[in-house]
Amino acid sequence: MSEAGQQSISSQDLADFLGANPPQIRKDFSYFGDFGTPGVGYKVENLAKQIKKILKLDVVHKAALVGVGNLGSVVMAYQGFRIYGFDIAAAFDIDSKKIGKKVNTITIENASNIRTLKKRKIDIGIITVPRGAAQETAEALVKAGTKGILNFSPCYIIVPKKIKVITVDIAMDLARLPYYMPAS
Amino acid sequence: MSEAGQQSISSQDLADFLGANPPQIRKDFSYFGDFGTPGVGYKVENLAKQIKKILKLDVVHKAALVGVGNLGSVVMAYQGFRIYGFDIAAAFDIDSKKIGKKVNTITIENASNIRTLKKRKIDIGIITVPRGAAQETAEALVKAGTKGILNFSPCYIIVPKKIKVITVDIAMDLARLPYYMPAS
Repeated sequence: MSEAGQQSISSQDLADFLGANPPQIRKDFSYFGDFGTPGVGYKVENLAKQIKKILKLDVVHKAALVGVGNLGSVVMAYQGFRIYGFDIAAAFDIDSKKIGKKVNTITIENASNIRTLKKRKIDIGIITVPRGAAQETAEALVKAGTKGILNFSPCYIIVPKKIKVITVDIAMDLARLPYYMPAS
Repeated sequence: MSEAGQQSISSQDLADFLGANPPQIRKDFSYFGDFGTPGVGYKVENLAKQIKKILKLDVVHKAALVGVGNLGSVVMAYQGFRIYGFDIAAAFDIDSKKIGKKVNTITIENASNIRTLKKRKIDIGIITVPRGAAQETAEALVKAGTKGILNFSPCYIIVPKKIKVITVDIAMDLARLPYYMPAS
């Protein structure tokens, strides 16, 4: 809405958009301060800024991707990360045929360079290695100071409790469909 | 556990595995019938079967993928779907260079063939086309009798209410990380 030049939005319009009701919208926002003006609604730009702050998305994060295979290449090419202020700033692989090559503007580095992440202020790791290499990759990332991991390998990885791991399992997303589908 | 030959599991072990507490596990299962035996626990194979039934995953579903680009190829190669009984049975594209080629054992078909899905008992669609083509793809899938859609295009698609859509947005998954990450 901000990009489209919209100045303000009512809690009614927000509720319609989200499938919620207006009092709930107002109540939820009120927990974080007084963003809205009665009769006018919310200023779009300020609201977006406040929500980013609440979700701790107001700080730019640099991420490193490990495993530049098919999936890794797709993830690196994905434009959507920019919306949330993420920057894939490094990519690693163990395949000497890939090391030194460029994907977008990123030069693929030897996985042994993962240890340099802290110095480079990269605090998020993205794991797109084959299943069997996921755990050791996670350990290398944690050792290098990574605080959050987005894991695309279809397996659990074990890391210290303070490290947040989010596993993306597209099979599980697909598996949610039948529950909602009418019987044939 | 079933694959590993484990016969039974206690609510305590299940709770440890899930980060929940045993009474909650027992209470939740009790809503769906009496699966467990006091002092013994749950028979693993039966429990898995019951859970699949509850989640409506006891029926094999055939899925069709539309858009065999980089992401589409990754999704087609993904082995994880089998766990939940999904079978990607067809793939479509509009690129004449791709039509007729094989990915795994699937021959890529002209997108105009989407209309044959109902006859082929394919009731799930997977959208991996570029953003601009997502809506028309969704409409073609719905017209062909698809009841559930897994959408990888980073946009909302509008379909009749009875059609369930799950959108996979990996940027949003990544965006959940900073909230949980300790400040530097």
